[in-house]
Amino acid sequence: MSKPIRYVTKVDLELPGDQQPQVHNRWHPDVPFAETILPGETVKIECLDWTGNQIRNDDFADDIKNVDLTRIHYLSGPFNIEGAQPGDCLVVEIKDVQPLERQPWGYCGIFPKHNGGGFLDKFYPEAAKAIFDLEGIHATSRHLPHVKFAGLIHPGIIGTAPSHSVLEEWNLREGRLKADIQHNHDTPVANLPEMENTHAGSATGEVAAAVAAQGARTIPGRPENGGNCDIKNLSRGSKCYLPVYVDGAKLSVGDLHFSQGDGEISFCGAIEMAGVITIKTSLIKGGMETLKLKSPMFIPGDVQNQYGPSRYLTFEGFSVDEEGVQQFLCATTAYRQACIRAIEYLRRFGYNDYQIYLLLSSAPIEGHIASIVDVPNACTTLGIPVDIFDFDIRPEAPIVKQEMGSCALVTGAGHNLTYTYR
Amino acid sequence: MSKPIRYVTKVDLELPGDQQPQVHNRWHPDVPFAETILPGETVKIECLDWTGNQIRNDDFADDIKNVDLTRIHYLSGPFNIEGAQPGDCLVVEIKDVQPLERQPWGYCGIFPKHNGGGFLDKFYPEAAKAIFDLEGIHATSRHLPHVKFAGLIHPGIIGTAPSHSVLEEWNLREGRLKADIQHNHDTPVANLPEMENTHAGSATGEVAAAVAAQGARTIPGRPENGGNCDIKNLSRGSKCYLPVYVDGAKLSVGDLHFSQGDGEISFCGAIEMAGVITIKTSLIKGGMETLKLKSPMFIPGDVQNQYGPSRYLTFEGFSVDEEGVQQFLCATTAYRQACIRAIEYLRRFGYNDYQIYLLLSSAPIEGHIASIVDVPNACTTLGIPVDIFDFDIRPEAPIVKQEMGSCALVTGAGHNLTYTYR
Amino acid sequence: MSKPIRYVTKVDLELPGDQQPQVHNRWHPDVPFAETILPGETVKIECLDWTGNQIRNDDFADDIKNVDLTRIHYLSGPFNIEGAQPGDCLVVEIKDVQPLERQPWGYCGIFPKHNGGGFLDKFYPEAAKAIFDLEGIHATSRHLPHVKFAGLIHPGIIGTAPSHSVLEEWNLREGRLKADIQHNHDTPVANLPEMENTHAGSATGEVAAAVAAQGARTIPGRPENGGNCDIKNLSRGSKCYLPVYVDGAKLSVGDLHFSQGDGEISFCGAIEMAGVITIKTSLIKGGMETLKLKSPMFIPGDVQNQYGPSRYLTFEGFSVDEEGVQQFLCATTAYRQACIRAIEYLRRFGYNDYQIYLLLSSAPIEGHIASIVDVPNACTTLGIPVDIFDFDIRPEAPIVKQEMGSCALVTGAGHNLTYTYR
Amino acid sequence: MSKPIRYVTKVDLELPGDQQPQVHNRWHPDVPFAETILPGETVKIECLDWTGNQIRNDDFADDIKNVDLTRIHYLSGPFNIEGAQPGDCLVVEIKDVQPLERQPWGYCGIFPKHNGGGFLDKFYPEAAKAIFDLEGIHATSRHLPHVKFAGLIHPGIIGTAPSHSVLEEWNLREGRLKADIQHNHDTPVANLPEMENTHAGSATGEVAAAVAAQGARTIPGRPENGGNCDIKNLSRGSKCYLPVYVDGAKLSVGDLHFSQGDGEISFCGAIEMAGVITIKTSLIKGGMETLKLKSPMFIPGDVQNQYGPSRYLTFEGFSVDEEGVQQFLCATTAYRQACIRAIEYLRRFGYNDYQIYLLLSSAPIEGHIASIVDVPNACTTLGIPVDIFDFDIRPEAPIVKQEMGSCALVTGAGHNLTYTYR
Repeated sequence: MSKPIRYVTKVDLELPGDQQPQVHNRWHPDVPFAETILPGETVKIECLDWTGNQIRNDDFADDIKNVDLTRIHYLSGPFNIEGAQPGDCLVVEIKDVQPLERQPWGYCGIFPKHNGGGFLDKFYPEAAKAIFDLEGIHATSRHLPHVKFAGLIHPGIIGTAPSHSVLEEWNLREGRLKADIQHNHDTPVANLPEMENTHAGSATGEVAAAVAAQGARTIPGRPENGGNCDIKNLSRGSKCYLPVYVDGAKLSVGDLHFSQGDGEISFCGAIEMAGVITIKTSLIKGGMETLKLKSPMFIPGDVQNQYGPSRYLTFEGFSVDEEGVQQFLCATTAYRQACIRAIEYLRRFGYNDYQIYLLLSSAPIEGHIASIVDVPNACTTLGIPVDIFDFDIRPEAPIVKQEMGSCALVTGAGHNLTYTYR
Repeated sequence: MSKPIRYVTKVDLELPGDQQPQVHNRWHPDVPFAETILPGETVKIECLDWTGNQIRNDDFADDIKNVDLTRIHYLSGPFNIEGAQPGDCLVVEIKDVQPLERQPWGYCGIFPKHNGGGFLDKFYPEAAKAIFDLEGIHATSRHLPHVKFAGLIHPGIIGTAPSHSVLEEWNLREGRLKADIQHNHDTPVANLPEMENTHAGSATGEVAAAVAAQGARTIPGRPENGGNCDIKNLSRGSKCYLPVYVDGAKLSVGDLHFSQGDGEISFCGAIEMAGVITIKTSLIKGGMETLKLKSPMFIPGDVQNQYGPSRYLTFEGFSVDEEGVQQFLCATTAYRQACIRAIEYLRRFGYNDYQIYLLLSSAPIEGHIASIVDVPNACTTLGIPVDIFDFDIRPEAPIVKQEMGSCALVTGAGHNLTYTYR
Repeated sequence: MSKPIRYVTKVDLELPGDQQPQVHNRWHPDVPFAETILPGETVKIECLDWTGNQIRNDDFADDIKNVDLTRIHYLSGPFNIEGAQPGDCLVVEIKDVQPLERQPWGYCGIFPKHNGGGFLDKFYPEAAKAIFDLEGIHATSRHLPHVKFAGLIHPGIIGTAPSHSVLEEWNLREGRLKADIQHNHDTPVANLPEMENTHAGSATGEVAAAVAAQGARTIPGRPENGGNCDIKNLSRGSKCYLPVYVDGAKLSVGDLHFSQGDGEISFCGAIEMAGVITIKTSLIKGGMETLKLKSPMFIPGDVQNQYGPSRYLTFEGFSVDEEGVQQFLCATTAYRQACIRAIEYLRRFGYNDYQIYLLLSSAPIEGHIASIVDVPNACTTLGIPVDIFDFDIRPEAPIVKQEMGSCALVTGAGHNLTYTYR
Repeated sequence: MSKPIRYVTKVDLELPGDQQPQVHNRWHPDVPFAETILPGETVKIECLDWTGNQIRNDDFADDIKNVDLTRIHYLSGPFNIEGAQPGDCLVVEIKDVQPLERQPWGYCGIFPKHNGGGFLDKFYPEAAKAIFDLEGIHATSRHLPHVKFAGLIHPGIIGTAPSHSVLEEWNLREGRLKADIQHNHDTPVANLPEMENTHAGSATGEVAAAVAAQGARTIPGRPENGGNCDIKNLSRGSKCYLPVYVDGAKLSVGDLHFSQGDGEISFCGAIEMAGVITIKTSLIKGGMETLKLKSPMFIPGDVQNQYGPSRYLTFEGFSVDEEGVQQFLCATTAYRQACIRAIEYLRRFGYNDYQIYLLLSSAPIEGHIASIVDVPNACTTLGIPVDIFDFDIRPEAPIVKQEMGSCALVTGAGHNLTYTYR
């Protein structure tokens, strides 16, 4: 009686993403439905890695350096959830996420400062990469020796399509930001609609043109639909509650992560992979009003990595920046300081800074907002599970230097792998 | 053989804090030692509540409204950790924290915007208070019906004294901040040294005068010594690693919290209490260098509230502010939005906004930095343990309105208890 | 570079187990190797369900009633772990266990008293069955409405082959038991070698005959090699340490369980399934001596169901039996009483006893030995996670009777579904 | 407003238990009420250690050897829960358990085989003892070096008084057991009413005589009222549901444990201590019928030791006894084998067997019934949290022998401290 679960999307790992009409890379209400899913039906959805096959399993970071960020993220869908109407709450239960059996590896990358960048690009402006082997629940990397952990596996992106008016608001407010502050930044503060390499799924003609002209980029998560929320705990068994803005909801999903640390600090910062997600949907009719649902919410699953609270070495970070300048209640600055403290600590074991940056980005790191009111300092914490290392990293343990190799770098790279903090 | 554990500090719950020489309320290297503690010795330290007995167990928030913030925080110590020298790492194991048996209650307050304020003072500018009864591990409040939880009990403040040069840096950098941005704010962005109501412990004469003139305020946690870090997970069994800047370390501790949510959003935002902390200290000689210890770090204890991951209703917050303005990678804004989403949701059950603000501040709320790189949006999450309520708050559960009473307000208060978000 | 993980065994879901030479159903040192595995290699092994395709996904328990127990358990292997020698410790890391994508269901059965029986066969002597749909990490059953849980997935059987002398000891000691006590029991107290339906893998001729004549049955776990240990926590990420008695270790694995409760009380009591297990092996040379390893030991994985301790409704059971007779420190009797208490309690919600028996057997129930020294009573506890139900089973919650249907029964069954305990 | 919590019992640590009328040491419906407690009231109850001050904090086990077991257990109460009637369910919430501040130590003992004995008395027939220092949440022992853990603190005994008819059944059924099997045992299989040293609380005259003549001993937990259930997880925050047999319930509590392993194998096997328990009671009128409550049940608290599942080294034990004899589905035998396997393993680090016996008894060991149906073998598991040791006990870690000293033994003891298992 019980048949195999239906696949609503399959992907091709050889073909560029934009040649696959069942995926798309912009948010727009007019991207055509890829498939229909019935509420109550459990389905499987294959997803490309977010770059649509741009990254290779090798020991050089050239592909990361030269990644084409107009091409991302390739999302499966959008799906027509039968019966969904604007104002509803779409409930998506994440039954499972798995890497594809035919490609059991993933990657974590550090983009160069001027092509993508990341949270610490001021100190680490060059490209780097770590390839992870995915064996069952475990990830290991030849570029990060002596580390192994179970994946807190999840979709980086899950969201419904914006309505035309929601889309318009996105473009306006991000445009305003760009107008206001871009001149103070040497990397983009926002990515506005970009016609080049827009992939509107199966759309053609005027629809495709509209999507290209107006379609919101997939990089930021946004309050209205979640999207690229990159929440590591949105893992197996989670139930998420998404606002619906268009008929059929137009659910899209992708950017699957085998694992990620809180903050996903290197930006290409999870263990990025092609994979398959199994979901089951239902509708709470009129749920946006009855639940006062303006942004997604979720209930995590009951199966997650459990290290025990005493197995986290935890660094404190405050909102005094790396130049010693006092910032005002800035949790972002505070979290950056916690990251720096962790790098300085872990470096003692022989890892280079780029390796640690990749590690903090991809392993199940806990990043908390501890206090946000003690003017002028915000305090954040960054907790590293000590059990992901096969040696003891705790303060009392003696340091036994081991061969730590290196992460993948750009061919011929000769740049400094360590940053000296004041 | 095993005698009762030695108390190195006792406090008086009737006497104002500044009449008790075993406590003090400024960070300064010259505050005299209150007592000596041997490394390896386990001791008990009584602590006043952070205001030094200013708050009463009653049903009005007048005491909160009129709190004198020049008088805070009253800290026990500073303690001479025998043998500690600048450059060492002081290890403090927190063996236990308990409320005082003679005063089994605590409070959470919302300061008025112009006397203390808090994370949401723009929306909730008036004073409010909740009194919590502390019975064993549980807290309940007549001002927050239908809520009960176990305390993740911890010291809000633990830190070593700054050296003269560290103190000077603090005063300089906070002064610079004030000079730079105070004109854009209608509440203080930093609290510089304040002679009024300085309590320099047992110091008199010139020393007392110096402490008053230069002593750093205790409100912010600071990277160099931790201090008011307000980390809820620094609970029983935790081991913290503190840099030492002066001979004897001059460890101070206080601001005990029976419970707190991540962010401690209402500022007087934990369940504040008088209590007793049991600690055991040790030294890692020269540890600041060998551990590259510039800020405190810690390993939490293995006994904490365990709700299971699937028992958190989790709200997503993005860095688009409450006016709809796009902020740039601002985790602080993002966390504020998550708080607002939680208020709008919980309000459906009959609580007023001030009650919810108090709840999010004092209950074991999880606040995570989910992603900090998806320009221009930071994404944070706020997780509420559903098991602290005696009814089902999950989205699928029917809403049964119950009598929720109110938190304590100022005598005769007639102000709005709800804020209408756009 | 990273190729798909190698399958060392594939199985056929249509063909009877004994027609598949890559599986076998007796423990014997001479069963030929099915494949070779290198230490350090990660491999995938498909496994039949333990009965070798005897059970159907339907709504009748006739297949359970008529199961042929001479045919079980069909195990994949035995595998030649290259380099393993008697006296070594074989370390097997369980990287993952999954149901087969082509058969996403499993079953839990109650055998009739005279064909298999179970822990409560005195009260529930008839056959019954529940079919579970396996969707990602979740199991649900049309035969157990209002229940859903994540699988704590594991192999029921994992073990190395006995040497000839170990095998001889098994046969002797179980034969002695049979001789001593069988006359007091009306169901078999042990299953001695049984030629009928012996499946010796690819063996033929004399070897096959020897296996048939001497091969130990797979029903009991045994101290020397583990085997059918049926330990629910031997789940993903677990590392088990197995004694080696023969060259190449001859590792066998099978009887995969999607989920099981402690005790596996209905005997066919887990969610039995065909599936695939991913393992990685290594050797500790001479480890039996250095580790004093007489029986297997293991370290569980860090990814397991987490309900939180306060989400278990826990029943106490003492060693006074169901007739009111005092037994002496008998944990087995005590656990039976805890099961009975749970049945009486859950029955109030409308489930019949057979349904509850199936539930306690297959869901992630915790069964602890609480105290074993308080003469004459042993005390055990049985904890039911309340979160596997979609209604509130706690004592204070009102009982809302719902339609609970029934488990599958034998065609035309008219027997009593409830037992009246004194 | 909030006054200190009322103490309903105080105890004297210098006076023998039977000179303190607020405690008693037999179960009998006529023991006079010690105090009245209102439903809804939170109260504190001091308790003697179970022996009523017989054990000393020293380095010899003579007191353990010579303990007078007619004097135990000294229980606080019985309490009159106002309004409780036969047929009700008494709900007791355990708000906290603490050692007495004035006596911060406890002990774990091994009774000699012929005065109390224990689970392994066949191998370890002599007396031994470990004294534990209790500092906040942590226990350490000079008799068990390199071990520290947080206490999963709980009452070993909590129960309501039996009615006259329940009491009669107890005496009958335990008497029958003694008649039936005592001749096969060389230590008592049950302890029948014993007039010597009966302590009937404040009773005098005929009542005292009746209690002495008929009062049930407190050693066994019993299905009807729980009593000495010795469940380690009945810790802080737990809610227990107890049947009521007499007016006022006559609740008694005592035998407080700072920590215990599953099984409490050495009998005097927890960290026994004098202490104080804080409880809050309520009634479910007629609850025995509506809940089908024949034995106590409970919901544990949400604050317990959390090591993470992968931090338990787990030993498997099967029901083949230490002589190599096959027992039939005997979980008791199986658990004994798991204990023996753990002793053989831990002995490698330099501990003697008596030390390990004490450790397994008192530390938070997990003992599970894994499978109870695989005829003829039951399988149990015994999990040791590796984080209670300050060195790495896992199989892969090198063994570094350290000075392990010894537990306390009887003065002049010269007996063997190791048992050689076959």
